[in-house]
Amino acid sequence: MTITATHTEPNSLFAFALGTVVRAGSGAIIDCYFPVPLRDVGGPFADQILEHFGSGVTHPAPETVAAFVAAATGAPATVLSACAELAAGPTPLVAVALIADTPIASTPEAYLKLHLLSHRLALPNTLDLTDLFAHLPNVAWTSDGAVAVSELAAAQRRARTAGRHLEVYAVDKFPRMTNYVVPVGVRIADGSRIRLGAYLGEGTTVMHEGFINFNAAALGPNMVEGRISQGVIVGAHSDLGGSASTMGTLSGGGSIRITLGEHCLIGANAGTGIPLGDRCTIEAGLYITAGTRVQVCDADGQPVRVVKARDLAGASDLLFLRNGLTGQIECRTNRRAIELNALLHVND
Amino acid sequence: MTITATHTEPNSLFAFALGTVVRAGSGAIIDCYFPVPLRDVGGPFADQILEHFGSGVTHPAPETVAAFVAAATGAPATVLSACAELAAGPTPLVAVALIADTPIASTPEAYLKLHLLSHRLALPNTLDLTDLFAHLPNVAWTSDGAVAVSELAAAQRRARTAGRHLEVYAVDKFPRMTNYVVPVGVRIADGSRIRLGAYLGEGTTVMHEGFINFNAAALGPNMVEGRISQGVIVGAHSDLGGSASTMGTLSGGGSIRITLGEHCLIGANAGTGIPLGDRCTIEAGLYITAGTRVQVCDADGQPVRVVKARDLAGASDLLFLRNGLTGQIECRTNRRAIELNALLHVND
Amino acid sequence: MTITATHTEPNSLFAFALGTVVRAGSGAIIDCYFPVPLRDVGGPFADQILEHFGSGVTHPAPETVAAFVAAATGAPATVLSACAELAAGPTPLVAVALIADTPIASTPEAYLKLHLLSHRLALPNTLDLTDLFAHLPNVAWTSDGAVAVSELAAAQRRARTAGRHLEVYAVDKFPRMTNYVVPVGVRIADGSRIRLGAYLGEGTTVMHEGFINFNAAALGPNMVEGRISQGVIVGAHSDLGGSASTMGTLSGGGSIRITLGEHCLIGANAGTGIPLGDRCTIEAGLYITAGTRVQVCDADGQPVRVVKARDLAGASDLLFLRNGLTGQIECRTNRRAIELNALLHVND
Repeated sequence: MTITATHTEPNSLFAFALGTVVRAGSGAIIDCYFPVPLRDVGGPFADQILEHFGSGVTHPAPETVAAFVAAATGAPATVLSACAELAAGPTPLVAVALIADTPIASTPEAYLKLHLLSHRLALPNTLDLTDLFAHLPNVAWTSDGAVAVSELAAAQRRARTAGRHLEVYAVDKFPRMTNYVVPVGVRIADGSRIRLGAYLGEGTTVMHEGFINFNAAALGPNMVEGRISQGVIVGAHSDLGGSASTMGTLSGGGSIRITLGEHCLIGANAGTGIPLGDRCTIEAGLYITAGTRVQVCDADGQPVRVVKARDLAGASDLLFLRNGLTGQIECRTNRRAIELNALLHVND
Repeated sequence: MTITATHTEPNSLFAFALGTVVRAGSGAIIDCYFPVPLRDVGGPFADQILEHFGSGVTHPAPETVAAFVAAATGAPATVLSACAELAAGPTPLVAVALIADTPIASTPEAYLKLHLLSHRLALPNTLDLTDLFAHLPNVAWTSDGAVAVSELAAAQRRARTAGRHLEVYAVDKFPRMTNYVVPVGVRIADGSRIRLGAYLGEGTTVMHEGFINFNAAALGPNMVEGRISQGVIVGAHSDLGGSASTMGTLSGGGSIRITLGEHCLIGANAGTGIPLGDRCTIEAGLYITAGTRVQVCDADGQPVRVVKARDLAGASDLLFLRNGLTGQIECRTNRRAIELNALLHVND
Repeated sequence: MTITATHTEPNSLFAFALGTVVRAGSGAIIDCYFPVPLRDVGGPFADQILEHFGSGVTHPAPETVAAFVAAATGAPATVLSACAELAAGPTPLVAVALIADTPIASTPEAYLKLHLLSHRLALPNTLDLTDLFAHLPNVAWTSDGAVAVSELAAAQRRARTAGRHLEVYAVDKFPRMTNYVVPVGVRIADGSRIRLGAYLGEGTTVMHEGFINFNAAALGPNMVEGRISQGVIVGAHSDLGGSASTMGTLSGGGSIRITLGEHCLIGANAGTGIPLGDRCTIEAGLYITAGTRVQVCDADGQPVRVVKARDLAGASDLLFLRNGLTGQIECRTNRRAIELNALLHVND
């Protein structure tokens, strides 16, 4: 097969967004806001993006953005109106046009990928987040917006001297999602508990004790009163009780990536170090780690086998509880003994 | 007995308040603030309220409020001065005069009932909260105040374009109590953890990990480092340790309404799915659900009987702990075996 | 030995700071901010401080501060520039010069000691905090700064009437540390969880569920996703999992002061009521109280002895877990039986 030199592939972009930046006194970018990030852009619009902004990270003049908006007449109206609005303001702009999902090489790219997750344009564990931490500066998040950590003390002194209040909400690499986007159909009782980069599906309610890290998801609908760690995905109609814990790969869970299927319930003050299938329940106050020894019982309540919890990883229709009289952790199921034994041997 | 047609019952109101409203662009009311709500108003003052505002929800002109203040000379001075102050400002007003405690039919009524609870004018579970959720819109709570969720993205774009910070604290049907009222004699380490509609009695300290939902109470004095779920009432001198959980009727507790009597302690990371009487303790880390099997021991430490925890609901002088050597959940009491057996049979 | 009357000891100060104050309408001081507190000041600089400000708490005029800055040419430049900056503003000033670490006698002294802890100038449990609570007024911490609790309702009415948002973050004796100082090399995901008076060593990350009280420390580096209670010190490289609890002396821990040595891990939803030595682990979901009976096993997994957890206080190389099949709390160690028995007898 011969490809002639004149053949050109149509342009396509993995992602594109225009946004505003906040810079430290040093000039370093410490915050990016992208009102309408896009994913998988092709056709003439991709050409227009590349023509006006080029690929990678650029800092277009307002006139460039205005020309882009005038040219890209076939593009989504919400995108163009947002671009026009940003270009009309005094805040410095940034454009990020990524040809492919490659390791992160700059702060604007890091912010764009976090936006993609929170705008529901990418599920957790599907983006290349290599070098994310290296390109996210630690920032003081204040009532004046992002402030470089090295400049915070001076800003606080200035505000106090002037008798003006400066609230410092956090000092972190990740800002709060709600200050960037609130996806449709969610309730978030405390915005400080959701990092930018969290994925909240429609119908997700995160109560005051709930927490969702970046690159973690409640697919919705869910009632989240517990903590969804980085990398963890919670399926539809699964609920986390107050202070329920999903073990992250950094905090002792080792290399097992935790997911919850659909219609699961992790009770209040309970937790899991193994992934769960569908319709699983862990009773309030019980923490299952991968190494926990568990007495599996069949649908008649008869003991079938003792296993480590990791052997039950991903299985469905399990109820975990600790017997109040014997202290034993029991795993009850609606499967019968023979069926269950066969199932368990699959994991051997 | 004959009642003549000319006899008129004196007017009386279940509740009255004048306040300010925030409206969405659509005109819908998304927030109400009532500085001095009143309950059980009778006599000439009730007449004056009805004469100037009528019953139900109305939106009086400032002149109407001024006339009301001038006429209602016998009314509490704090009420009249607050009304006069509100009327002098540019913010739109709302008056709610409820003849009776009926199902909620509007957003101002919903807000008034939440105010009644937080102003200590009604205990949890004593108000008709029917249709509360239906009349509480989901709202973005921001550093600019209430913003309609559908208008948030535009507001964020405007603020960012102008280089101005807009903090989005929460996206929820319920606002934070502290932005409406802080009742006398309380400490609240984190205002984001107390919903409007919570009842905090005098002497209540809510630490950073504490949480009190709407229609839930710490009667005071209490040290609250755990979570008081909707419908739950905690009695005087009872404390919740860090992350202690009181099971709500929505999260697995079924239809049992949880209360704690006086001088109880739920230890850190512990929890209860049953109501407790007075002087009960649950040791740190132990979660008692209604179905938990418990070994009851008498004052001499002798086993008396095995029960499900729900059979101990409401009993006093119980100490729940899990034996470190046997894993058994024990309920110790200061009652002797015979007395205890009789008591337990009462619940049979 | 004779000390002649003319002999004068060179002046020295336990601590000194110049700052700004916020006063209630009553004139009472409700907040103090000290940008550069100092500890153990001696030599000519101490003389200059005492000459210009005297000892104790004073409220210098800006001219006095300017004269001090001009005179104290040998003092640290950061201190003098901060003093000059404060003196140039309209906010009322306060100077606190403490000869010795004596019981707290005023609000500025209380704030100075909290600053000393958070500026890493004093470790927890090393300062005289007598009467701290008596001299810390309960304050409403708002987006307008500190507001006297008795004046809050009026401030809220004024703001609402004017259509202006007033956020009330907390009502507490202690403000948030991040509004005063963020020491070098930390991340704090939620500023509302760290009280002024907390000590965060370099390399400390406090996640959203983490909490550090006043007079409590993470010496750093640490990953803190649990709660560090008042008086508790966590050593280097020790981590607290999500909702992990360290029992305070006020919440049931009695008189045992909790510390964690180095390289410890308290798992998610776990807790300790005893101090731990180095390299100890408590598995997720397990709460060890002082009175918990524990089966100690040696390096070969053989049971050695049953003890109460308090007998293991401060020991190193322990792993606590609850056997999933027997419900027994086991303490495993890398010590052999004989060595271990000897060690345990030391505490008898």
